[in-house]
Amino acid sequence: MTPYIHSVNYYETDKMGITHHSNYIRFMEEARLHFLAEAGYPMQRLEAEGITSPVVSLNCDYKHPTTYGDKITITVTAQRYTGVKLSLAYVMQDEAGLVVATATSSHCFLDQEGRVIAVRKHAPTFDAILKRAVEGHS
Amino acid sequence: MTPYIHSVNYYETDKMGITHHSNYIRFMEEARLHFLAEAGYPMQRLEAEGITSPVVSLNCDYKHPTTYGDKITITVTAQRYTGVKLSLAYVMQDEAGLVVATATSSHCFLDQEGRVIAVRKHAPTFDAILKRAVEGHS
Amino acid sequence: MTPYIHSVNYYETDKMGITHHSNYIRFMEEARLHFLAEAGYPMQRLEAEGITSPVVSLNCDYKHPTTYGDKITITVTAQRYTGVKLSLAYVMQDEAGLVVATATSSHCFLDQEGRVIAVRKHAPTFDAILKRAVEGHS
Amino acid sequence: MTPYIHSVNYYETDKMGITHHSNYIRFMEEARLHFLAEAGYPMQRLEAEGITSPVVSLNCDYKHPTTYGDKITITVTAQRYTGVKLSLAYVMQDEAGLVVATATSSHCFLDQEGRVIAVRKHAPTFDAILKRAVEGHS
Repeated sequence: MTPYIHSVNYYETDKMGITHHSNYIRFMEEARLHFLAEAGYPMQRLEAEGITSPVVSLNCDYKHPTTYGDKITITVTAQRYTGVKLSLAYVMQDEAGLVVATATSSHCFLDQEGRVIAVRKHAPTFDAILKRAVEGHS
Repeated sequence: MTPYIHSVNYYETDKMGITHHSNYIRFMEEARLHFLAEAGYPMQRLEAEGITSPVVSLNCDYKHPTTYGDKITITVTAQRYTGVKLSLAYVMQDEAGLVVATATSSHCFLDQEGRVIAVRKHAPTFDAILKRAVEGHS
Repeated sequence: MTPYIHSVNYYETDKMGITHHSNYIRFMEEARLHFLAEAGYPMQRLEAEGITSPVVSLNCDYKHPTTYGDKITITVTAQRYTGVKLSLAYVMQDEAGLVVATATSSHCFLDQEGRVIAVRKHAPTFDAILKRAVEGHS
Repeated sequence: MTPYIHSVNYYETDKMGITHHSNYIRFMEEARLHFLAEAGYPMQRLEAEGITSPVVSLNCDYKHPTTYGDKITITVTAQRYTGVKLSLAYVMQDEAGLVVATATSSHCFLDQEGRVIAVRKHAPTFDAILKRAVEGHS
């Protein structure tokens, strides 16, 4: 997996002069969707199959502030996949390699009526990809 | 029409210490949807009827900076309505009455296939409301 | 403490048709700063004294989706305060009282050089307020 | 000048399923700061010299909707520079070359006390760059 890089935008800073903490949650989404695309199953394909994947929970630990122009490299790893729920971990580093934040998120998968689905039934190829991603990491 | 008040959030500021200019475009949307609701036709009703209303163009003149905690009163007036296109004007004032920004936006109306519609045919009550709003202002 | 109400804006939704998950992190900030103001110490006063209060960590559990126009009531309680670090808990409910999300956040306090401060030395009144807030809750 | 490319993020869409119009204002800022950096004077250098550059006015014409995953190429040209005020024009195109939006913005330059400055006195190299940029375009 190639890591994802987000260059902090001016509009992502706040009056403290640093990247507003809420934006790291958005960087996580950028890196997560990059991860799925790299794994061979972009979100557009999931949505074309009538599947959405909302966030069930997340947490983020802010280690060092960043600001406009900083390039944050985000490494995503699949921690756990139950067939129904996926858990990811994120490490965010600045250009010097300093860890600026770590985070986790978990996700379920819904059909168009908003019901939780078993991925294996609705998208077996995606299911296989997620299983491999978790194994590759463990 | 009661004016709309937006209290500037901390996350809406940038590293210059002021409200980021892009957020006024969002305040315009808040005030516009408040205006439609006050006029008796909330966006939810339009959407339930399969109508969306994208922005065709907008402009904004920034007169004075604002920052976290400032309460911006936004007055919306209907400038022009052709049956197909609606133009609105916005005056944004701080608590002392100082004009901090003025703006305009224009909007069309689309059906679920994304085609421009004549509002009178698809939503005659809304059409009548918009006509009255423009007359009330002129 | 009066609870804080956030009415979901159109621009806070995403193409799933629901409030984007990153925005709840912003609603937490709105509610938190409302909480501090209600407690008698608005962020503006802290900043005037040269103190900022960055987020150290947060987590959020998403229980039910919300969308444009939903009014989310956010109740903030002070969970723990060590004199250096403050932990808050949030319960977010829709108009029917349904819990749509729960969250926590922790915060430190910095001087203008970015050093962690002991609140009691730099802002004794604020220190007393935070102590009372935690006791009031426990 | 190399053009700037923004890949639309999921969180930049709204419940209409398209990129929210306010985000194009942010893409303009991204492209503008890229333009300044490419011209040899990144915003960080301006800020290090105590100069900020707020938006005085802007307008945007939305031609075609975009959505998650679309890659928008933004070409910036310097239209006019008076020594005190800078006007820029933007053309935004999708991967097929279709113009999805056009826009303009104008900017002044402020010192740390918030006073409008003559760029030639405070940042002569930047002044020369802006003059050349306008000539290069005309």
